[in-house]
Amino acid sequence: MAQSHASEYASLPHSVPPALPKIEKFKVGLCQLSVSYDKEKNIARARKAIQNAAKRGAQLVVLPEMWNCPLSDDNFSKYAEDFDNVDASPSFSMLAEVSHEQGITIVGGSVPEQCGDKLYNTSCVFGTDGKLKDKHRKLHLFDANIPGDISFKESDTSTPGDKLTIVDTDLGRIGIGICHDMRFPELAMFYAQRGVHLICYPGAFNMSTGEHLWELVQRARAADNQVFVATCSPARGSSGCYMIWGHSTLVGPFGEIIATTGHEETTVIAEIDYSIIQLRRENLPLYRQRRGDIYQFVDAHVLKSGQ
Amino acid sequence: MAQSHASEYASLPHSVPPALPKIEKFKVGLCQLSVSYDKEKNIARARKAIQNAAKRGAQLVVLPEMWNCPLSDDNFSKYAEDFDNVDASPSFSMLAEVSHEQGITIVGGSVPEQCGDKLYNTSCVFGTDGKLKDKHRKLHLFDANIPGDISFKESDTSTPGDKLTIVDTDLGRIGIGICHDMRFPELAMFYAQRGVHLICYPGAFNMSTGEHLWELVQRARAADNQVFVATCSPARGSSGCYMIWGHSTLVGPFGEIIATTGHEETTVIAEIDYSIIQLRRENLPLYRQRRGDIYQFVDAHVLKSGQ
Repeated sequence: MAQSHASEYASLPHSVPPALPKIEKFKVGLCQLSVSYDKEKNIARARKAIQNAAKRGAQLVVLPEMWNCPLSDDNFSKYAEDFDNVDASPSFSMLAEVSHEQGITIVGGSVPEQCGDKLYNTSCVFGTDGKLKDKHRKLHLFDANIPGDISFKESDTSTPGDKLTIVDTDLGRIGIGICHDMRFPELAMFYAQRGVHLICYPGAFNMSTGEHLWELVQRARAADNQVFVATCSPARGSSGCYMIWGHSTLVGPFGEIIATTGHEETTVIAEIDYSIIQLRRENLPLYRQRRGDIYQFVDAHVLKSGQ
Repeated sequence: MAQSHASEYASLPHSVPPALPKIEKFKVGLCQLSVSYDKEKNIARARKAIQNAAKRGAQLVVLPEMWNCPLSDDNFSKYAEDFDNVDASPSFSMLAEVSHEQGITIVGGSVPEQCGDKLYNTSCVFGTDGKLKDKHRKLHLFDANIPGDISFKESDTSTPGDKLTIVDTDLGRIGIGICHDMRFPELAMFYAQRGVHLICYPGAFNMSTGEHLWELVQRARAADNQVFVATCSPARGSSGCYMIWGHSTLVGPFGEIIATTGHEETTVIAEIDYSIIQLRRENLPLYRQRRGDIYQFVDAHVLKSGQ
């Protein structure tokens, strides 16, 4: 599989189905963690959950959004890590260490990242060698004001990322989004267009958007693009400014729920079988049926540069 | 509201919310009709259902996909109408007549359209004056081969349309899609980007795609784009080559099901209140949060002409 996407991004037509990776079938572990105000404890808890998931056979482990930090604007800077400074990045270091120790791939949920004077909501992906493969900074910050329900303005404290994140791993080509990123079909369409097999969305929907949209949106992303989608949420009892929906889930390329859970702390272990993507696309080749003569979905950078 | 979209299509940013039409609140009737092999009876049945819906207060009536013709490849040409030949278009004429008679807007489901030597799956929209406002030819033909479930190749007999269809009516700006068009998020995104309030999808999903995808897909189109979505299916007992799912539904801009039904012949009457679109968009302005600097969704014609 290609290691660099730059040139293919510009030219890839809508009609290319993804090539299957060497490993077609494997177990994923979705660690729905409780998050406390004690960062050290959060890290220890996450380490243990990852190790247990690996023991249960998971080759890929996904953590929740903000697993080291209670979900609340005023906490982000306190719990943030500068990944360039190893001594000040215990969450980052733990993920590097345990992915290597267990020989697994980790989509490290997200933690607040401090970079200069900016804060990002960032997901780090580690390979089986314990090295950082790539990081995704949340692109769509959650600014919502629903009277009587939730008021949250992530953009008051955080800066949005400026790139899509596709990671080639031993377990296929993985696209990353964080929480509110899931609400934008564009991200998933972009990833699918570029041969992604699995989209991982660490996320922390609240009770209202959780009940109405959490399952709907992830199933739609999977079914519309005929890919797998994995979501991982903190458990409900977590600290922070709002009640969390939970329900970490694995969805297959027909929009089918393969495994899910309630709102308690737990780890969902489920099997991903990429051959189902091929099957679904043979049955119903949506990727060939798109009308590129009428609408096109393009990389804005490419558009701007006139390529 | 604008009557011509050509120039605004090219320049409209992602961030424009739709203006509300004069009539914000009205009733829609979704006529889930049984379809027989007798075309005349189908037309009489549809006329009666529309009249009844109007009596119950519906100002907009939506009919199912292929309401004058059993769903089967070999029937399409037999039941087709050439809309330019009034004497050979009894379905078309009935819709024109009854929309004028009742003073309502009709999204006329779809019927097979004969145009020269080509067949289209076409939806005609009539205004309160009984005049054709626009017609939509199905863009994405249903070619599927799911062993043990369904094999259907619409492209063997039909030609796909070549344009998106946005109709400005007294009841708002309406986008039209037919059945498999609903599987492509692009269509709905395009419509929403251009200020559509309501997308109508006449459709006839089968039992398998119906169970798994019918509700999912229409709810996703509504929630992702913060618009209303109305679907209208034939009833299950209809003639044709496969069992039809039914479940004609109205969905609101939060993905909420406002009204739905089972698989029997019936008419769903439900209220559309466009002010809910404004409310949802004020609460969570997805349209402003899109990242046009990273991805863009463009009109392929505009792209080609280099505008």
